[in-house]
Amino acid sequence: MIETIAIAGVGLIGGSFGLALRAAGFRGELLGVSSPATIEGALARKAIDRGVTLEEAARTADVIYLAQPIFRILDTLTALGPLVREETLITDAGSTKRAIAARARECLPTGFFLGGHPMAGKEARGVEVAEADLFVGRPYLLTADDPRVRNARITAEFVQLVQRTGALPRWLTAAEHDRLVAASSHAPQLVSTALAAALAARSDAGEVAAVAGPGLHDMTRLALSSYEIWRDILETNSGEIDAALAEVEDSIAGVRAALASSTMRQRFDEAASFAARLRGTRRDDSSGRSER
Amino acid sequence: MIETIAIAGVGLIGGSFGLALRAAGFRGELLGVSSPATIEGALARKAIDRGVTLEEAARTADVIYLAQPIFRILDTLTALGPLVREETLITDAGSTKRAIAARARECLPTGFFLGGHPMAGKEARGVEVAEADLFVGRPYLLTADDPRVRNARITAEFVQLVQRTGALPRWLTAAEHDRLVAASSHAPQLVSTALAAALAARSDAGEVAAVAGPGLHDMTRLALSSYEIWRDILETNSGEIDAALAEVEDSIAGVRAALASSTMRQRFDEAASFAARLRGTRRDDSSGRSER
Repeated sequence: MIETIAIAGVGLIGGSFGLALRAAGFRGELLGVSSPATIEGALARKAIDRGVTLEEAARTADVIYLAQPIFRILDTLTALGPLVREETLITDAGSTKRAIAARARECLPTGFFLGGHPMAGKEARGVEVAEADLFVGRPYLLTADDPRVRNARITAEFVQLVQRTGALPRWLTAAEHDRLVAASSHAPQLVSTALAAALAARSDAGEVAAVAGPGLHDMTRLALSSYEIWRDILETNSGEIDAALAEVEDSIAGVRAALASSTMRQRFDEAASFAARLRGTRRDDSSGRSER
Repeated sequence: MIETIAIAGVGLIGGSFGLALRAAGFRGELLGVSSPATIEGALARKAIDRGVTLEEAARTADVIYLAQPIFRILDTLTALGPLVREETLITDAGSTKRAIAARARECLPTGFFLGGHPMAGKEARGVEVAEADLFVGRPYLLTADDPRVRNARITAEFVQLVQRTGALPRWLTAAEHDRLVAASSHAPQLVSTALAAALAARSDAGEVAAVAGPGLHDMTRLALSSYEIWRDILETNSGEIDAALAEVEDSIAGVRAALASSTMRQRFDEAASFAARLRGTRRDDSSGRSER
């Protein structure tokens, strides 16, 4: 029975998870492990009931939820090794899974660890912008290559809590996770960065910006991301990201070749079909972007 | 004095221009040259006062506004050659300018032609979704490599009307126009198409779509565009588009190389600065996308 959940890193995701648990009717205790300033903000938002040390969390919590940047999660796993009790479920919300799962195997005495990745977020960071409905309708990716973890009673109970936040749990292996999000999230981020960097490097960058429409806004919104957020992701998933970017690079080369051939229609059709599938709709051939 | 304006192609742009002129207090006559069904729709929306043939438009209009697809504009310019009166201003709303300007030089007896490109649009097409405020706050690119056109009294009068629709006129040469929009609009469209096509070609495309967040939605929205809209643009600006795409391709190769080096932060910073400039804001280092 999950009665106490400790959230390490009570920022946007950790804070929203606390708020979402409360909104979903979770009546247990919510502990926060963060800097004093963050704890203060989290208490003010009622995302947690009280701040504790990692040691106290390890002693008392049924679930420890690591909602920190990836490298901080790795450090926390190492620190938890000698502290954690066998019956505690350690889970996380990091954006890549293989490196974290490997560290958990290495440092947790039982190796009992549930990887998690809620596909939710917003532009701003911090518990100040946390929201109880951040996870509603969004995939919540779960990884546990060890069947012990996947089949455990506490895992089932935690996944029920996740569902009660409105998220849509989806099981993957850690390797599948990292491959899929490299394609769905990491490569698109870097394509946006590469597009904006290419335009920034032009001598006429200011004029290009002056004539831009909403299409370029869409394509460069991810490029506003700060490197601080992405560094850990890129370092812990560089192989899959490189492979996904190589496919995009080839696809752009193909589009360039198609500029001088008759295959462009097919590329537009394939691309539009995928974009429509992403939106859960059939492609409507009669519509199309007219801003250009 | 501009008293009669004929709009050839009363769709989203042509219809919106008619509505915007009326909303701005234009009291002259608005004629429409389109298929009977489109004329009917445009009359119902009050975007025009009556439908006419191109011949009648050429006989009576002070301004003929070509708001058709690019290849239709080229055909209309050829048709207008023997019909047009010397005092009429022919202008257009096509998305590329060099090919259209060249056809105007070739076919119009005086070569008197004002290129135009309102940087406005929406996802849907047709006069049904035309709006009087479509141009408000949006750049309206004007090209006239011939100083006669740029300095003519009727040109000044037309540009005043454009300003009264809320658009922001900006003068360029036709070559500058095509180079800038290749970078700001055409290459971003094809990057979106190439990204979506690359993902569509993966054997795990369905799983990628299932775990995608709003970032991939942004990056593939342009990929929903129909080829019908883009064919003419790609064919009449392929050289500039290819050059802009080559820069993006190089930039992606650079990002891939940076995955294994220490230069990624610089790329993120350059990209974020451009993306912020585009939005008319300074970059706020404390914020960043957290969906990933």
